[in-house]
Amino acid sequence: MKNAYDRFITMTREIRQLGTVAELLAWDQETYMPKKGIALRAEQLSTMASVAHERLSSDEFGTLLRQLDEDIDDPVRATNIREMRRFYDRAVRVPAELVARIAKTTTLAKEAWVKAREASDFALFAPHLKELFELKRQMADCIGYQGERYDALLDEFEPGMTTAMVADIFASLRKPLADFVQRLADAPNQPDASIVRRHYPRAAQEAFGRRLAEAIGFDFDAGRLDVSTHPFCSGAGPLDVRMTARYYEDYVNASIFGILHETGHGLYEQGQSIEHCGTPTGAYVSLGIHESQSRLWENMVGRSRAFWEKFYPECQAAFPDALTDTSLDAFHGAINCVGPSCIRVEADEVTYNLHIVLRFEIERALLDRRLDVKDVPDAWNEKMRTLLGITPANTAEGCLQDIHWSLGAIGYFPTYALGNLYAAQMFEAATEAVPDLEGAIRRGDTGVLLSWLRENVHAHGMRYRAAELIERVSGRPLSIEPFMNYIERKFAPIYDL
Amino acid sequence: MKNAYDRFITMTREIRQLGTVAELLAWDQETYMPKKGIALRAEQLSTMASVAHERLSSDEFGTLLRQLDEDIDDPVRATNIREMRRFYDRAVRVPAELVARIAKTTTLAKEAWVKAREASDFALFAPHLKELFELKRQMADCIGYQGERYDALLDEFEPGMTTAMVADIFASLRKPLADFVQRLADAPNQPDASIVRRHYPRAAQEAFGRRLAEAIGFDFDAGRLDVSTHPFCSGAGPLDVRMTARYYEDYVNASIFGILHETGHGLYEQGQSIEHCGTPTGAYVSLGIHESQSRLWENMVGRSRAFWEKFYPECQAAFPDALTDTSLDAFHGAINCVGPSCIRVEADEVTYNLHIVLRFEIERALLDRRLDVKDVPDAWNEKMRTLLGITPANTAEGCLQDIHWSLGAIGYFPTYALGNLYAAQMFEAATEAVPDLEGAIRRGDTGVLLSWLRENVHAHGMRYRAAELIERVSGRPLSIEPFMNYIERKFAPIYDL
Repeated sequence: MKNAYDRFITMTREIRQLGTVAELLAWDQETYMPKKGIALRAEQLSTMASVAHERLSSDEFGTLLRQLDEDIDDPVRATNIREMRRFYDRAVRVPAELVARIAKTTTLAKEAWVKAREASDFALFAPHLKELFELKRQMADCIGYQGERYDALLDEFEPGMTTAMVADIFASLRKPLADFVQRLADAPNQPDASIVRRHYPRAAQEAFGRRLAEAIGFDFDAGRLDVSTHPFCSGAGPLDVRMTARYYEDYVNASIFGILHETGHGLYEQGQSIEHCGTPTGAYVSLGIHESQSRLWENMVGRSRAFWEKFYPECQAAFPDALTDTSLDAFHGAINCVGPSCIRVEADEVTYNLHIVLRFEIERALLDRRLDVKDVPDAWNEKMRTLLGITPANTAEGCLQDIHWSLGAIGYFPTYALGNLYAAQMFEAATEAVPDLEGAIRRGDTGVLLSWLRENVHAHGMRYRAAELIERVSGRPLSIEPFMNYIERKFAPIYDL
Repeated sequence: MKNAYDRFITMTREIRQLGTVAELLAWDQETYMPKKGIALRAEQLSTMASVAHERLSSDEFGTLLRQLDEDIDDPVRATNIREMRRFYDRAVRVPAELVARIAKTTTLAKEAWVKAREASDFALFAPHLKELFELKRQMADCIGYQGERYDALLDEFEPGMTTAMVADIFASLRKPLADFVQRLADAPNQPDASIVRRHYPRAAQEAFGRRLAEAIGFDFDAGRLDVSTHPFCSGAGPLDVRMTARYYEDYVNASIFGILHETGHGLYEQGQSIEHCGTPTGAYVSLGIHESQSRLWENMVGRSRAFWEKFYPECQAAFPDALTDTSLDAFHGAINCVGPSCIRVEADEVTYNLHIVLRFEIERALLDRRLDVKDVPDAWNEKMRTLLGITPANTAEGCLQDIHWSLGAIGYFPTYALGNLYAAQMFEAATEAVPDLEGAIRRGDTGVLLSWLRENVHAHGMRYRAAELIERVSGRPLSIEPFMNYIERKFAPIYDL
């Protein structure tokens, strides 16, 4: 059995390496690729995908997986076999012809989405969306599911999570969160949001952003920070992590909190085991857990008053024209403004989850055929009114705002809100476990928090599924309580609740 | 047969795409990769190489090649089939075990070479070199050859070229070139080399280098210019060409002529057919022909007086402190200093070929066992005395200076000198074909030359082997005459011969 396992690991690493190469191609496309290179890049990515798929779904790999027993004492082996079996099953269950149809449909759908959003004309996108949901239904049926069809899609991004669990969590979040947003709107003190919209020179933003990433532990010998239109973090392994940021001279949040967010992802990647690199034991658990790391550093740490007690003097020195006469409290308020808005990616950390609840409810209903594609704009607007009390002026800032569906990413949105909830529950556990964590953050000593995350989250790779990991870390199942407590405690002093 | 050919082209393109991905990985390694990423990168490259090798040497591809007849009227098909058969044959004839042994040996050899060169101690490198030559002998025997063993190695880099042809050409070059170097050394006028060693600010070098690349036709929407320790040009296809340069503030030649050189390579890549991208019809002929394009733009154009009549005023404006009081003639002399030196990569365009003759003679003798590895330093020094009249102070600036052998690149060096000779012969033909080419260059209108090269060289891809291409372009077989005439005409006025 030793030889079969070794061969299995070699093949597993190769499959992952092909994936990391594709990630580098995607990174290059967003950062340095000359613009005329796009057609060739699409072909390279398609070739890489087919090569990786070929190896993953090969008879040899399938035979190895059948020979190996995941029900063994060694947690490393058990994890690797269990997770690669999951990848393999997903790969072989969907016929190549359906994969190709989805790829072709998403290419056209993405083009149509770009035009539809520009024209704010949902009808241009609707037929593509309809076809995509039809194909995704077929895909889900190929993969199989125990509860409902949406499970099979959700599982791609959040392994082990069920639609019923998400629906329960989101149902319990809906009302308290909408009420909280209303309380903030009615609160006596409203912070001055214009502070972050003064003039912040780009070069100073780049230097200060890099300083913050380094300060919270990002190793620039094992990673980079570049510029792209849409910020992202892609990791080829703990020793080569690529993050990007964007810079607006009239809106400093985009770089500061964009960089803290991506650095959260980056720290998770850099915290993976070098020994197990390329295998599930050295890989992230789920998109939700990944997002929990970015949100924890962006919001729980990066938007805390304690953090800025340390860094605000440096921030003032970096942007003297904008901030010399602004107090720490005023700045802290400005970076914590909460209010209903139409665009998810611009939403604050409180209303953000409501944007996700809305998307989850709509895509689940579409998949179940309880909602018709043509009725999406109306359903969207109605939910916006219920959840946030506002109505988008048009579909461009309504149901056409996100690229995800056009890419076939259905079942992806919930991971964003799960990330916020995981983050709050982890941060609560860390606050209990690390003596005077707030004091440490106040002194800029975030290393204690990073060490705790490394030990309790990063080091496990995929050993535990998200639900299990959260329970191990915090001693109880995922709930909305830590998140609700966190926002109550944080926003009460800012808004004078 | 239609379907077999289509499938053959699809597989050919995939194989090439995997190669271009590996090139991008190598480019990234030299430009942006964080330093701790090196181990993973080595694994990625090794996986990419094995995936590409698998596809190239697959039964399916072999069967297709057997079904297809290259002896057909359609030159595109004939070229693609002939060249892919050549790649296939080379791939299947060498056993995987030998490929792996060579890969392992070169990894160790490269490490040993780095240390040996640092310590200037040939004994540290000698056992590795001995083993490499032994393995390369085995490889040559697997591949097969008609004349001598060296043919099989040379053919990798310069398809169709034979050792006997190279030996003839180099034998005829040896004496006249050494004599010419002596004549220049004895000439009444010696240009002032110190001009190019004044202070040239880096930012101005970057801007001016980019300006020159653009001026001679490089399309920056289809390529990039970055920084690396060793300049290179790598092309994934005509629409994504990556060049690099290096900058020394006390030696402006490194950037100006480095960039013109790489731009020559880049223009060749950008001149390949978009329609035939990924197939031999859209690929470079040989390393020698590739080098001819870089040398033609670097030396025949870029070091000509006509070129600087156009660009010297801009150059003075870019570097006012260094050049305001320096005449065009003095600058033109400074960039055309000729003299014996020990290091190949620093050699001028006249002595350069002698460095190559020396390497060719030594590696050919090593492969034939007419020379023993332990005697390489003595053989090297003796040839340096005969050819250039100087003796290296140590092996670091003697036989340990180049990385090539440590990488297993034996049979590669001749392509550099062949490139110089091809370039001179092509430039002579262009001068005859294009009315008043020198006048056009004087006006900065190098587009007429580029068009001529596009039509007569670039557009053919691999349709003609180098020897045939040269004969088609110039009307006669390769000879040293155009090169000797070129240097005579060029250096006579500079040195007052």
